[in-house]
Amino acid sequence: MLRVGVIGGGQLARMMQPAAINLGIQLRVFAEAENSSAHLSATAVGDYLDPAALLSFAKGVDAVTFDHEHVPKHLLEMLEREGVKVRPGSAALIHAQNKLFMRKKLASLGVSQPIWAAAKTAAEIEDFISKNGPEIIVKTPIGGYDGKGVRVVSSVQEVQDWLDSISDFGGELLLEQKVPFVTELAQLSARRPSGKIKIWPLAKTVQVSGVCSEVIAPVSDVGDQAKNIALTISEGLGVVGVMAVELFQVDSGELFVNELAMRPHNSGHFTIEGSVTSQFEQHLRAVLDLPLGSTGLNAPFAAMLNLLGQDDSNTMQPHFSKAMDLVPEAKFHLYEKAPRKGRKMGHVTILGDEPNTILKRANLARAAIYGN
Amino acid sequence: MLRVGVIGGGQLARMMQPAAINLGIQLRVFAEAENSSAHLSATAVGDYLDPAALLSFAKGVDAVTFDHEHVPKHLLEMLEREGVKVRPGSAALIHAQNKLFMRKKLASLGVSQPIWAAAKTAAEIEDFISKNGPEIIVKTPIGGYDGKGVRVVSSVQEVQDWLDSISDFGGELLLEQKVPFVTELAQLSARRPSGKIKIWPLAKTVQVSGVCSEVIAPVSDVGDQAKNIALTISEGLGVVGVMAVELFQVDSGELFVNELAMRPHNSGHFTIEGSVTSQFEQHLRAVLDLPLGSTGLNAPFAAMLNLLGQDDSNTMQPHFSKAMDLVPEAKFHLYEKAPRKGRKMGHVTILGDEPNTILKRANLARAAIYGN
Repeated sequence: MLRVGVIGGGQLARMMQPAAINLGIQLRVFAEAENSSAHLSATAVGDYLDPAALLSFAKGVDAVTFDHEHVPKHLLEMLEREGVKVRPGSAALIHAQNKLFMRKKLASLGVSQPIWAAAKTAAEIEDFISKNGPEIIVKTPIGGYDGKGVRVVSSVQEVQDWLDSISDFGGELLLEQKVPFVTELAQLSARRPSGKIKIWPLAKTVQVSGVCSEVIAPVSDVGDQAKNIALTISEGLGVVGVMAVELFQVDSGELFVNELAMRPHNSGHFTIEGSVTSQFEQHLRAVLDLPLGSTGLNAPFAAMLNLLGQDDSNTMQPHFSKAMDLVPEAKFHLYEKAPRKGRKMGHVTILGDEPNTILKRANLARAAIYGN
Repeated sequence: MLRVGVIGGGQLARMMQPAAINLGIQLRVFAEAENSSAHLSATAVGDYLDPAALLSFAKGVDAVTFDHEHVPKHLLEMLEREGVKVRPGSAALIHAQNKLFMRKKLASLGVSQPIWAAAKTAAEIEDFISKNGPEIIVKTPIGGYDGKGVRVVSSVQEVQDWLDSISDFGGELLLEQKVPFVTELAQLSARRPSGKIKIWPLAKTVQVSGVCSEVIAPVSDVGDQAKNIALTISEGLGVVGVMAVELFQVDSGELFVNELAMRPHNSGHFTIEGSVTSQFEQHLRAVLDLPLGSTGLNAPFAAMLNLLGQDDSNTMQPHFSKAMDLVPEAKFHLYEKAPRKGRKMGHVTILGDEPNTILKRANLARAAIYGN
């Protein structure tokens, strides 16, 4: 029987479970805590920084993959030296772990991206602001997610704390032009070790306070730009598994790469119902080097809204009755996470013929499950 | 958190897992063995005939439902007396457990069914053959499935063994006219305790040696007959959960009820990908008395082929590579069951615009996974 090991027990590992059950693949999750979102498949609970625990876990599976990008490179390399199939491999994953590495590599591949620079000093930041300001983006190269580790600033003072502890972030900060985008997009793809790549239709994403709130797919007015960017990056970096490329679209229609993720991604949750092959099934196929499934859509459009924690008490499930009654076509997903304001607790997806209609219906479902 | 208990750890319990994971519902399975198909959710392993074990299991969940119909009525009644929500309830389920009870009840509801009779003696069987023969169907009222407990006979001698042990079957055999059907159909529906019913589009089934081989949906040339039969039975019996009504269609177009199942059913596996709400999710919603989901289709047609054991060694997964390569749109499902000739090991589903095309593609996928 095929076995896939996942490091991290969050909602991405959780959502790999239905795909694994369908295919009769054993999913084994290395979770950080007993009550993780993917607890049903947790065969190890502990600290992924413990090399012995990590190796013991990895030795029992056909391929190791990830719920998050936090496993340090030296541990991934240790696993690879021991013959473990780490997918994506350490040499590719570093570009999703370190945003400066990513910018450098994308530059070498000729991929369109915002003006950027690495900075070690206040003077370098001041210089970048004077050339690309008044506002610029400063990012910690490692450790950021969902808007954390990202600031819009117009003075060095606003990132003085990061400069003071710059060694925590690899000794440099990433400075980026604030792109005057009109739309944010996400291009999902998957690649298997043999090199075969499948691309899903392009999605439009809407962020609120740096957190994804809404995804609608497909959007089709940017031609092959997004597809070609994904192909260039996936091949150029030797990615294995699902990759999401977050893109800025500016007024002229041109695209710029914002972020990369080498795993199933929030912007691809619509594929669970919306695509013949979900990003979770495709990721399992890819890391096992199985042929990739069709990325065709099951409906003209799919809309996905995140269900974000409203407070410390609303687990959302008590509102199923109202929400399901109001919107019988809505597909609800809850991640079994303790409620906390702003936390990704679940999502809701609706398929249909007309984007505005399904967005409206999805918003109705979300309002109901929020208890409104 | 909502909790559903399932008695029996077969593939139907297994396929409830993805639906439960999506909705953040805890599924607890009372399995008969450690290595059951639904082992991932098994919280109890033992004998469901043990009243104490059954009650202890049932007390921990919001509703108890079933992977099979084998739990005796007196145990279900015991659970009900103890306040357990048994869904479907014992008073309904008896009609799926005992085919004579079913025939009597359907007669009282005026539902169209084959000519039938109960028989205790050889003389009664001879009389039925002389009136409805030369061939008739004899069924053991209890304990049959997948063609077992069903014989086509033209003489008493062919069921002498059943007559000799008639007390094992409740003291009577069920005799039925051999209906000259042109097609077999299956009507899937779901009902929640409050009475709300949802009906899926009608499916056509093809049996080989008494075992379902192929399902295609929708078929639409029988008007509202099948829908009305399902409504009459579901309401008349007070079913809670999914119900499948197997139907014979004769040359004139008229339908006759063949069998009933009060649980997700092989004929409804196409709903996993084919319908907005799968039979497994709908069953969970129904037994928890949540609003039922849309039973609309995600494509014009769905074709489902069972993957039957070819021998004692082909686990089918080693053929994924070939099968997935040939048919990237196929959805493969494996049940983690030890291979055995004729055993239901999994199934494959394909959605599409044209029934013959998807049947052909599904057959290609099946042949590949059989290793042909």
